[in-house]
Amino acid sequence: MRMYDVIEKKRDGKELTKEEIHFFIDGYTNQTIPEYQASALLMAIYYQGMTDEELAHLTMEMVQSGEQIDLSAIEGVKVDKHSTGGVGDTTTLIIAPIVASLGVPVAKMSGRGLGHTGGTLDKLEAIPNFSFELSQQTFIELVNKDKLSVIGQTGNIVPADKMLYGLRDVTATVNSIPLIASSIMSKKIASGSDAIVLDVKAGSGAFMKDVHQAKDLARAMVQIGKSVGIDTRAIISSMEQPLGSAIGNALEIKEAIETLQGRGPEDLTELSIELSTQMVLLAHPEYSPEETREQVKEQITNGKALEALRTMIVHQGGNGDIVDDVSLLPQAKYTIDVPADTSGFVTHMEAHEIGTSAMLLGAGRATKDAVIDLAVGVVLHKKVGDRVEKGESIATIYANEKDVQASIDKIKQFTVIKEEKEQTPPLIIDMIQ
Amino acid sequence: MRMYDVIEKKRDGKELTKEEIHFFIDGYTNQTIPEYQASALLMAIYYQGMTDEELAHLTMEMVQSGEQIDLSAIEGVKVDKHSTGGVGDTTTLIIAPIVASLGVPVAKMSGRGLGHTGGTLDKLEAIPNFSFELSQQTFIELVNKDKLSVIGQTGNIVPADKMLYGLRDVTATVNSIPLIASSIMSKKIASGSDAIVLDVKAGSGAFMKDVHQAKDLARAMVQIGKSVGIDTRAIISSMEQPLGSAIGNALEIKEAIETLQGRGPEDLTELSIELSTQMVLLAHPEYSPEETREQVKEQITNGKALEALRTMIVHQGGNGDIVDDVSLLPQAKYTIDVPADTSGFVTHMEAHEIGTSAMLLGAGRATKDAVIDLAVGVVLHKKVGDRVEKGESIATIYANEKDVQASIDKIKQFTVIKEEKEQTPPLIIDMIQ
Repeated sequence: MRMYDVIEKKRDGKELTKEEIHFFIDGYTNQTIPEYQASALLMAIYYQGMTDEELAHLTMEMVQSGEQIDLSAIEGVKVDKHSTGGVGDTTTLIIAPIVASLGVPVAKMSGRGLGHTGGTLDKLEAIPNFSFELSQQTFIELVNKDKLSVIGQTGNIVPADKMLYGLRDVTATVNSIPLIASSIMSKKIASGSDAIVLDVKAGSGAFMKDVHQAKDLARAMVQIGKSVGIDTRAIISSMEQPLGSAIGNALEIKEAIETLQGRGPEDLTELSIELSTQMVLLAHPEYSPEETREQVKEQITNGKALEALRTMIVHQGGNGDIVDDVSLLPQAKYTIDVPADTSGFVTHMEAHEIGTSAMLLGAGRATKDAVIDLAVGVVLHKKVGDRVEKGESIATIYANEKDVQASIDKIKQFTVIKEEKEQTPPLIIDMIQ
Repeated sequence: MRMYDVIEKKRDGKELTKEEIHFFIDGYTNQTIPEYQASALLMAIYYQGMTDEELAHLTMEMVQSGEQIDLSAIEGVKVDKHSTGGVGDTTTLIIAPIVASLGVPVAKMSGRGLGHTGGTLDKLEAIPNFSFELSQQTFIELVNKDKLSVIGQTGNIVPADKMLYGLRDVTATVNSIPLIASSIMSKKIASGSDAIVLDVKAGSGAFMKDVHQAKDLARAMVQIGKSVGIDTRAIISSMEQPLGSAIGNALEIKEAIETLQGRGPEDLTELSIELSTQMVLLAHPEYSPEETREQVKEQITNGKALEALRTMIVHQGGNGDIVDDVSLLPQAKYTIDVPADTSGFVTHMEAHEIGTSAMLLGAGRATKDAVIDLAVGVVLHKKVGDRVEKGESIATIYANEKDVQASIDKIKQFTVIKEEKEQTPPLIIDMIQ
């Protein structure tokens, strides 16, 4: 087999066989296929797309390029959740305890992140003494006992994705639905879950700006799951404005705790309930959707979800008191209010730019080696549709340095206030299964 | 400037600026831009094409990547000819003497070739003692004195093309009109001519199988010429069957001489007259096309074109007597006739496969380092439209080994004989200027 022929075939829009895809992934990871041929194929895939069969083969070849986590020692159906990422997306820390409190095992492998704030691991570091450096055995024991544990991504999972992503990143081939779908799904599949709920974000603060594109991505990922026998469903949710109110690491932990106490922001609560419901339904297809949704809400009301979070924190060495006293989290030195320049209704909040206002304070990494300031960030007091009076605080900045003018300017500039109220877009746009 | 942005821009179908194209060609030839980024851009160009402006910039940036031949010491308008290549294409050795005999300077830089037979340089090696290793000064003096000289390609001409072609060859991006057009035109422009006649072949024996594609390529090249101030026109000619009768190096020299003696094959003569006419008209736009065509024919009839060939051969150290006695050319040991298996009319000759029958004998190079046998090849006695009787010789094989069954089989298989005569396609399909 020659890589030239594989490129030419895809270039001309023909379907690659399992053997051809194996040849590519195997050769590329073993460096017998040079990067210039891989990048030519990636660009051809960018234009020609992939069929469902090709996508399933590509994903599984990527999975098989490295280690696969064996979670078979965990009892029950292991359901994972993945979000394509946005601004103020704290759902993991809310959903995982809810689902665990309903007896569904959550064996969560999380990562750090580049972007406006850190990843789930970074956020958890805001909890004093919390450790996610567990042995595989301890992790499995904790999930079997508590139904919940979080560790850092371990092992050499999907090395093909690391290599391909690096190449895509410098050849303008990141933004390709089949390549994104296989990248995400290969990592989820290699992590050993039995079922997956996807939260695919659409809007200015998401990777997919366009709802149609987000749906295409969701469909591709659900189809991959089906093809390889992993039950997968996807929620399409809006990321036109930041999710919830908090953008920052400790601030988002605080917001997650408040949401589990039943007093979180409306949108974050709604999305968390929906995602939790779908996770439980994947583990228990025999449950009724309506009753499951009610049970999920009940776990917040009766405090059991919050207790599941406390248990996890304590069993991973952290200070469980933070669920009662969020002042134990890292605190910023300064709080600065951002006043509205005019009265009216908030009609638009550019999620990406508002997120950047938090990153400028040190809440996120611009480069891989940057150090995150866990205490800093932004808390929004107004969201799209809210009434605001001139001089009223639309947001509070939490900072460890006094000069935050750039963040103030960004928040003001990208929070659009108009005289007339405009219709607010729905948060949950669609579900694909 | 970042190469990523250049790739992304072209990927999205936007027009690259002169500066962006300079950045790419300069960076790629200086190896500051890696091959994997170059191949991603090439594949994006494959799909998105290039505008006339982009194409002109790309071509000139390629020209400027290396040496440019200075022919300004040659008096008159220097007109070059380029053929996109086919089977039995001997026109250069016919046209150059015709045009020179009419006072138009032909400073021909030729190359060797991969394919069914060698390139013009290989063919000229069949002439005893002929040398094309001249100094630049001798070359220019000969053109000024005789209006004709042929040398091998010298200097570091368009290194960007050598590098890009090598990369295209392994990434399935050879077959792209803008990339082919810029490759051909950059080499012609760097060779220092004032005007160019292109012979773009279309059909099974040509690189462009399809007439529409051939026209698109011709249009792109003529447009490049116009954009950079080099008067360019293109003939689209059929390469469905081999051109002329001879396929082989010495055999084609013999055929060229016969054509200059007025007894060459009809199609080869017709195309040579047309190309010569266009070359003279480019040098003398004030001439009438009809009168020029008559004058071109006259140069064959009155023997002046043949004399121009003799002069060139003699002045480059070769034996001029070959124009009177072609038996002085290398002779093959064996001649084997290929008899027709059936009676009827020739309706089709697959040029590529008939060409391969000659290559199998040793007439052409399959790899860069292969050695050509100058004496061997095939002479066709029948062309499309001709009547043939069962047992009659349709071709003669000239070989230096006895076992030529594979060549016989190919010629028989790909010379289609049917009971009914079919319409023969026109040789000259179109002219683009």
